[in-house]
Amino acid sequence: MAVNINCDMGESFSLYKMGEDEAIMPYVTEANVACGFHGSDPNHMRSTVELAKSHNVKVGAHFSLPDLAGFGRREMKIERAEMANIVIYQIGALKAFLDMSGVKLNHLKPHGALYGMAARDEHIAHAISDAAEFYDVPIFGLSGTLHEEIYTQRGLKFRAEFFADLDYDDAGNLLITREHHAVDADDVSAKALRAVTDGIVVSLNGKEVPVKAETICIHSDTPGVLKTAKALWAALEDHLEIN
Amino acid sequence: MAVNINCDMGESFSLYKMGEDEAIMPYVTEANVACGFHGSDPNHMRSTVELAKSHNVKVGAHFSLPDLAGFGRREMKIERAEMANIVIYQIGALKAFLDMSGVKLNHLKPHGALYGMAARDEHIAHAISDAAEFYDVPIFGLSGTLHEEIYTQRGLKFRAEFFADLDYDDAGNLLITREHHAVDADDVSAKALRAVTDGIVVSLNGKEVPVKAETICIHSDTPGVLKTAKALWAALEDHLEIN
Amino acid sequence: MAVNINCDMGESFSLYKMGEDEAIMPYVTEANVACGFHGSDPNHMRSTVELAKSHNVKVGAHFSLPDLAGFGRREMKIERAEMANIVIYQIGALKAFLDMSGVKLNHLKPHGALYGMAARDEHIAHAISDAAEFYDVPIFGLSGTLHEEIYTQRGLKFRAEFFADLDYDDAGNLLITREHHAVDADDVSAKALRAVTDGIVVSLNGKEVPVKAETICIHSDTPGVLKTAKALWAALEDHLEIN
Amino acid sequence: MAVNINCDMGESFSLYKMGEDEAIMPYVTEANVACGFHGSDPNHMRSTVELAKSHNVKVGAHFSLPDLAGFGRREMKIERAEMANIVIYQIGALKAFLDMSGVKLNHLKPHGALYGMAARDEHIAHAISDAAEFYDVPIFGLSGTLHEEIYTQRGLKFRAEFFADLDYDDAGNLLITREHHAVDADDVSAKALRAVTDGIVVSLNGKEVPVKAETICIHSDTPGVLKTAKALWAALEDHLEIN
Repeated sequence: MAVNINCDMGESFSLYKMGEDEAIMPYVTEANVACGFHGSDPNHMRSTVELAKSHNVKVGAHFSLPDLAGFGRREMKIERAEMANIVIYQIGALKAFLDMSGVKLNHLKPHGALYGMAARDEHIAHAISDAAEFYDVPIFGLSGTLHEEIYTQRGLKFRAEFFADLDYDDAGNLLITREHHAVDADDVSAKALRAVTDGIVVSLNGKEVPVKAETICIHSDTPGVLKTAKALWAALEDHLEIN
Repeated sequence: MAVNINCDMGESFSLYKMGEDEAIMPYVTEANVACGFHGSDPNHMRSTVELAKSHNVKVGAHFSLPDLAGFGRREMKIERAEMANIVIYQIGALKAFLDMSGVKLNHLKPHGALYGMAARDEHIAHAISDAAEFYDVPIFGLSGTLHEEIYTQRGLKFRAEFFADLDYDDAGNLLITREHHAVDADDVSAKALRAVTDGIVVSLNGKEVPVKAETICIHSDTPGVLKTAKALWAALEDHLEIN
Repeated sequence: MAVNINCDMGESFSLYKMGEDEAIMPYVTEANVACGFHGSDPNHMRSTVELAKSHNVKVGAHFSLPDLAGFGRREMKIERAEMANIVIYQIGALKAFLDMSGVKLNHLKPHGALYGMAARDEHIAHAISDAAEFYDVPIFGLSGTLHEEIYTQRGLKFRAEFFADLDYDDAGNLLITREHHAVDADDVSAKALRAVTDGIVVSLNGKEVPVKAETICIHSDTPGVLKTAKALWAALEDHLEIN
Repeated sequence: MAVNINCDMGESFSLYKMGEDEAIMPYVTEANVACGFHGSDPNHMRSTVELAKSHNVKVGAHFSLPDLAGFGRREMKIERAEMANIVIYQIGALKAFLDMSGVKLNHLKPHGALYGMAARDEHIAHAISDAAEFYDVPIFGLSGTLHEEIYTQRGLKFRAEFFADLDYDDAGNLLITREHHAVDADDVSAKALRAVTDGIVVSLNGKEVPVKAETICIHSDTPGVLKTAKALWAALEDHLEIN
């Protein structure tokens, strides 16, 4: 089965730079482009879409809670209808740049706190579904959680995401940390390859647990990300959807 | 020739209410819906598109300078490429709500300070054109000014807008005021009807000057706007594009 | 014991109007002035401080979560240190306008969702205390809740607030509603007077429960607020701190 | 005469980092701390004030046009009263953090586009003066320009700023560029020293022109700024106000 490598991109804002988009773009197959609510702005959205296009990288909307000052990492209590509207607005804004560049919308991925909320809170998973219904593209998420259930119940496409630079517990749950620690590029690659080929991850306690890995996420703010990206690309090359 | 009546709509924001959208919607044929940069937000964009749809009113994008705190009425020095991107973002955001509701994008209209800048500054008229090129819809503007020239040179559709509740000088120039004064509904209607049928407006000095009126603008913050809207509708009914 | 009547003021933003500040100002003794994070802006802060001064009304800082798009009514997960900094920023901004007008800072009152969070979440009550420590003024809150305990433990002044236009349950807990329903001005006044003089409120079930009322809050978005304000002023006149 | 070295500081925002504040702080005597309108946020304002304090560096308010998305570098048309209120708000916000840390406000410096507007537009220089009147501290600016005239006419303190990493023309006018090019640390130091001791700068054309240099500005986004800062400190050490 074909796999993808995805990375958050286009999060620079105003004169502020975030991430090494130009360096990393050659080593991913899917770019999650920020839509201005946690990072990015019209200039960076446009240039990131064009950068992705020039590398034949597919582009998805990486929408967020409306919280630029907190980079979308502070949970907010928002009702379903309002949350859906906030998501629709952001997808539409990105889509205009995609249309301009003749690039298709490839996927949807909630950012930061919203990603975790979608995996846990029914009304948030439904809000995202309310927005996603109009677009015939997969939503990224954690396999085995509430949002997979809701998205698929509603007939939406779900894409299981694997985080090769984070740890899992014995139940297969992702252990999310606020800061991303340095990782060894070879370890990450080996871990990703095993998840892709065998559907297995070794938990923090050393236990083999089943896991689903249809797209591998690279965190652009993990120290040494470029080296990791290259190693990951090399390890997965035969399995990538582009081949 | 068929004429339209347009009005700025959907400018409410957060818990703040602006305009009598529900009352006025039955008396216009085109709603200019704010896109969140001078007013509106995802909730109000969605409900306004649905309100317009329920009245068979066409919807255009009413994009602005990025200046919520100044309601888009403070000029900003922005370069062409950045301005184009800011416009594209807003059109895209609105279009997502239109797509959701199955409504077509009908027109484009710059808001506030940007409208005046487009009529005067070459790089702004070009920036708007750069965004508009992708959408096959008319841009509203003042006939006989720089933006008409640039839009039409570039093969874009232009729609001449007439302001029935403002005064014109002997050269046919619109006299824009910051605050909108109360007007007599019958005077406004008669003035609009003459502009539509004869292409003539009587200037502040009493001189008859030629004018082009393909769509008549109602300012929703002019005192007594509902009465004016009803009178205008009655006066123009036979000429409206819907008939 | 002397009592005060307080009201949220200065929440207008940009061209958006909120509340009848000019009409209500004569009937309150304390104005809670918004600081730009849920409503208000530098222009409205300045004019509201001057309006309060002209009526000899005391002024407090009405600080909020950073959420203009949600009018500060959506809970956000924010850590103690960051929350304290957000509060300090807002108090400082208001204080500059007070300094300009020669008006003293009179009190502190968290707005909206932050008010409820302060009454319930220890780290939020501490964050507000961290900011308040520098200012020798009371913090408004609900008597008998966690924030009273924390503020007073830390040696800060606490002012018990009574909501005459909302209902209480048999345990003396305030029943907060999102929308404020119309109330009878005489009922509200009688209820406030009894709370002030006897320390008693009749619960929704008809039970007499003890309550503390050092300052009475008027909600400016309750329908018919001006009539209520006048009735309340008349009922409490002999007890007001100004006399 | 004693001279100072000043640098813009605290411009990081949300998770976005801007400038090498920790590295440069030991080599300046005055920090211009951003106030949240073009950069910074409550967290960064607080930590920057504390960082400056730990190095005995004086702190001034570096206020801006309200334009985070443009980093305060896009001119905006704002009237005098509104501009004054915008400045007051920002000074007050910074002052709260200074008060918390027991640090005195040392100076005022407009940021970016506002700096140039103050040097050129009478109503902007007056707006800044309207805010500055309350604080007994100098305003930084370009000697020989309109704002020096207006500030001093109104009895406010003016501090002549010299830009050692930018060029001057034969009339002594600063040649402002959008991007800051790499400079030679020794050249910059020699240039600054001569401006301080002799009041002379050599123009781009090689002409010696008189110049006033009471405080030397270091641009933290000039490539190689740390090396320049160290060289400048060494060259000016005997003349610094701290000695």
